[in-house]
Amino acid sequence: MGFPDSVTVVEVGPRDGFQRETTFIPTEIKIEIINALFNTGIGQMEVTSFISPKAIPQMADASEVVSAIERRREGLRLIALVPNPKGAENAVRSEVDEIRIFVSASESHNLSNVNRSIEESLMGFQEVMRIVAGHEVAVNADIAVAFGCPFEGNVPSEQVRWIAGQLLALGAEGITVCDTTGMATPPIVRRVCECLLTAYPELDLGLHFHNTRGIGLVNIYEALNLGLTTFESSIAGLGGCPFAPGATGNVCTEDLVYLLHELGIQTGIDLRALIKVAKRMEEVIGRPLPGQLMKAGLRLDLHPFNKEVRK
Amino acid sequence: MGFPDSVTVVEVGPRDGFQRETTFIPTEIKIEIINALFNTGIGQMEVTSFISPKAIPQMADASEVVSAIERRREGLRLIALVPNPKGAENAVRSEVDEIRIFVSASESHNLSNVNRSIEESLMGFQEVMRIVAGHEVAVNADIAVAFGCPFEGNVPSEQVRWIAGQLLALGAEGITVCDTTGMATPPIVRRVCECLLTAYPELDLGLHFHNTRGIGLVNIYEALNLGLTTFESSIAGLGGCPFAPGATGNVCTEDLVYLLHELGIQTGIDLRALIKVAKRMEEVIGRPLPGQLMKAGLRLDLHPFNKEVRK
Repeated sequence: MGFPDSVTVVEVGPRDGFQRETTFIPTEIKIEIINALFNTGIGQMEVTSFISPKAIPQMADASEVVSAIERRREGLRLIALVPNPKGAENAVRSEVDEIRIFVSASESHNLSNVNRSIEESLMGFQEVMRIVAGHEVAVNADIAVAFGCPFEGNVPSEQVRWIAGQLLALGAEGITVCDTTGMATPPIVRRVCECLLTAYPELDLGLHFHNTRGIGLVNIYEALNLGLTTFESSIAGLGGCPFAPGATGNVCTEDLVYLLHELGIQTGIDLRALIKVAKRMEEVIGRPLPGQLMKAGLRLDLHPFNKEVRK
Repeated sequence: MGFPDSVTVVEVGPRDGFQRETTFIPTEIKIEIINALFNTGIGQMEVTSFISPKAIPQMADASEVVSAIERRREGLRLIALVPNPKGAENAVRSEVDEIRIFVSASESHNLSNVNRSIEESLMGFQEVMRIVAGHEVAVNADIAVAFGCPFEGNVPSEQVRWIAGQLLALGAEGITVCDTTGMATPPIVRRVCECLLTAYPELDLGLHFHNTRGIGLVNIYEALNLGLTTFESSIAGLGGCPFAPGATGNVCTEDLVYLLHELGIQTGIDLRALIKVAKRMEEVIGRPLPGQLMKAGLRLDLHPFNKEVRK
């Protein structure tokens, strides 16, 4: 098996997970969870979104959250999602290291998501890049529904490649392709990634999978076989699917890290500490979350053998 | 990707799933579910266990269930689990096509499970084989905890191979290695399967994985890459883990079939019909079950695009 030696796990729970929670999570709880996550060894995290509080009240405390995050290690990367120039202005005033812009691979999803055409979104990013210019902040871009669109179905790889090219031309340093509604399968993962990497062999390519149809980790396994090394996931599997009430959303971070470690792939993350944060997250959210490992425990945490069983 | 063209999915929900339910499921409901499952195109199913009603009251209606199953197609294979000679006597009087004997790969688990040493279990199977002799019923064998034991941890592949050899010598026609508590990982799957197939290249080898730690389908994906073609799973993911309350048990049949079909592997199973049975199972059991696909729907079952979204 030709797996990479190490992988970067990008935690997205505090943004993608919290964002879907309708009850406001107190700012100090958000900060507690984010600090605990960084303390497990996670190096990159989407910590918030600089979006209108009217659109997503949950993210109204974005600046406050970012400023309270402890940077106990060198090189931590705080990432904030930014939907528009206004968000970019707020983000550059904060202390984030990376802003993340996003556009969908299908017109219908982009329209549904941000009420703009893909072209209009790309135009808007020019303004974002002007705002960011001169600030010490990286810009990366997400391509949503890159593995399938809930309105249009299959999305041509060439469309994803074209959008990636536009984003790179605008100045995005890296691209993350997102399986927003869990439509990716191993053959689609291979097709999209090979198309992108053939066009842009040096591309800093991240992958964001959902477990909506149960195969999120299989898709990651396929991507590992392709040599990819950056994966986004959410602690405890927090985050749902907007198109299927009750369905699972993001791949679960601790389940992913468990798989990676079992494959001999380094992450720099303390899995036991991660499980503790997952349990804390479940406590904070107040309902069972999809993560499996936190329920079952580590593989080699053995059970006592009751010799009395033989009567 | 060198996947097999077709795969046999062996449904185990009516045995492995029902068995763990403490509330008795009415016999007519069991029969309804089993018939519905066979009607989706499933060809092989563990339909019950001929075990003492004192040990597992849920299986007290084993004979009644088996005799009521409709055989609408040629070649359906009704499988019953049999723990001892008494169970074998009852099984051969029924109309099952295969009886399944079982032994653990670790002494502690075998002792815990059936209160016997592995040697004593193997001795008992000699008596089972004498009872079966002359009857038109196949005998296959399960090896439990073949990928790891909750009491002993890692299980040497050579131990699994030795037990497989003993079972084959006794007359078992095929062997299924079982990940009873979800300890398998892709490298362990590879190690155990390669060890068995090196020793017995013609072995009829089935695999039974659990999703206890979230990677059940990844293990199957690895096994597909090894060319294996027989997998056991449970409709809706019914069935828990005896060592981790709240944890998931068996891999979910419809999620597995979805993955297989998306890989271009044939199963002969109607996935939409399977999802209907999964939903019915959830209704019968009366609590949410782990299956993902039944909540999210098929990948290309698209959502209506609301053009009015753009105001």
